[in-house]
Amino acid sequence: MKTYPDCLPCFLRQSIQAAKLAGGDEASQKNTADEVERFLQSVKLTDSPPKTSRNMHVIIRKLLKNPDPYKSLKDKYNQLALSMYPVLSEKVKHSKDRLLTAVRIAIAGNVIDFGAQLEFELNSDINDVLCRDFAVFDYEAFKRALERKKYILYLGDNTGETVFDRILIEELAGQYGSKIRYAVKESPIINDATREDAVLAGIDNYAEIISSGCNSPGIVLEYCSKEFMDIYSSAKLIISKGQGNFETLNAEPRPVFFLFKVKCGVVAAFMKLPNGSIVLKEAQNAG
Amino acid sequence: MKTYPDCLPCFLRQSIQAAKLAGGDEASQKNTADEVERFLQSVKLTDSPPKTSRNMHVIIRKLLKNPDPYKSLKDKYNQLALSMYPVLSEKVKHSKDRLLTAVRIAIAGNVIDFGAQLEFELNSDINDVLCRDFAVFDYEAFKRALERKKYILYLGDNTGETVFDRILIEELAGQYGSKIRYAVKESPIINDATREDAVLAGIDNYAEIISSGCNSPGIVLEYCSKEFMDIYSSAKLIISKGQGNFETLNAEPRPVFFLFKVKCGVVAAFMKLPNGSIVLKEAQNAG
Repeated sequence: MKTYPDCLPCFLRQSIQAAKLAGGDEASQKNTADEVERFLQSVKLTDSPPKTSRNMHVIIRKLLKNPDPYKSLKDKYNQLALSMYPVLSEKVKHSKDRLLTAVRIAIAGNVIDFGAQLEFELNSDINDVLCRDFAVFDYEAFKRALERKKYILYLGDNTGETVFDRILIEELAGQYGSKIRYAVKESPIINDATREDAVLAGIDNYAEIISSGCNSPGIVLEYCSKEFMDIYSSAKLIISKGQGNFETLNAEPRPVFFLFKVKCGVVAAFMKLPNGSIVLKEAQNAG
Repeated sequence: MKTYPDCLPCFLRQSIQAAKLAGGDEASQKNTADEVERFLQSVKLTDSPPKTSRNMHVIIRKLLKNPDPYKSLKDKYNQLALSMYPVLSEKVKHSKDRLLTAVRIAIAGNVIDFGAQLEFELNSDINDVLCRDFAVFDYEAFKRALERKKYILYLGDNTGETVFDRILIEELAGQYGSKIRYAVKESPIINDATREDAVLAGIDNYAEIISSGCNSPGIVLEYCSKEFMDIYSSAKLIISKGQGNFETLNAEPRPVFFLFKVKCGVVAAFMKLPNGSIVLKEAQNAG
């Protein structure tokens, strides 16, 4: 997906957010914004939003002299999510359609996203996603794919959301015997999950954790490592979590199922769906 | 009120909105945004947001070669508001506390604001304001002031909102015998009311329409005409509509009552009130 003009204020908003989280005073926030205002003039609308976001955050981290402004927020949501794990796990065990419940929980974890919004009510937002009708629901195709394909590349998204991913991954490994590779970011970007976060969530007990080799919110293929690209290119089934990964991969000719919550007006308009929609969508060019 | 870093993305958002309303394609929207990104670097946080907004829109109108990008939207809301007038007028006539109902209606009209947001549901938003508790409610002081002061300077705000102001102005003229001067903007800025809009709302039947001499969203005193400043400086009672006028006048030592709906997180934080609050507030330095 390309970048739209409406993305530009959102990038600027994010830069001020990062400066605040890094403890910057108003002068520092203004300074960061000014640097980003300069950067935004060079942005190409043909690039995907996550590519632009990645390049912007390189500038921001350097300016703020802070390699990970979102660290303390990530720690907080890691702990919150871990504390919810037992209840979520029980929910799957006692549900009629365990896979569907696990899918819902994995999408529910996608509400944890500091890129699109900083404030959310974890518990109520999660309960909302668990009950809401899917706006796109390619569930039968998803089940068929799981039955036919043993090896899965699972593209992770955010810190904390990793715990919710674990629920689905446990289900896939246990009920379908899937062999899963779980891809994380090479280094911190916004609140995206790195290896450390995936391990903290316990994902390494059920999946092989691999790095995308890049640090963009959403897999930007041109920035990924050769090792990751070899795995990606030959994957027979890909589960892609989060709006960012949808933004970068929606037009790619790969067998992807996108699981995410629509979190901004731009993606809502692009998908012709209401903002807030939850989606289990098979890629159009899945082949 | 000063400008906060969080205002900067909102300015940028507004510039893209203006380009869209002027019929600009994505290239034009990006071009407008880039020009505003350059401008934002020169913004002083010590200036009020409406002063910055005014200077930004000067640049935008020139760039878009369009003296009034919001014209068609203003026409739409003028007509919508006029169509609501008979019902609103009846509501006042049949209410127990006519002044309070008229005040509520005047504030309800303040939901029509393309600066803070472009999308709103006029009818439901108005009904919401008519029922909601005031977050600040200096009503007794307001009534006492009306009883003591015959001459009122009423600072108008937005197009369409003018029709709702007329309801209050009719009540003040009829029940309190007030003599009112209604101040509008000298020329178009966002969807702020000009003389033409005030006349269309029928305000000239109950008040003398005057110009502030400037075209900023919110009265920026340094840009106002000498004629307006003479009236403003000697006014014994000022009714100020809208968030913009609060942003520019809140610290001024004048006898002002502010009537508005809080429409953004920055003003909400400044006032220590929830976003969406409705306010009838006597100026702290009213003297």
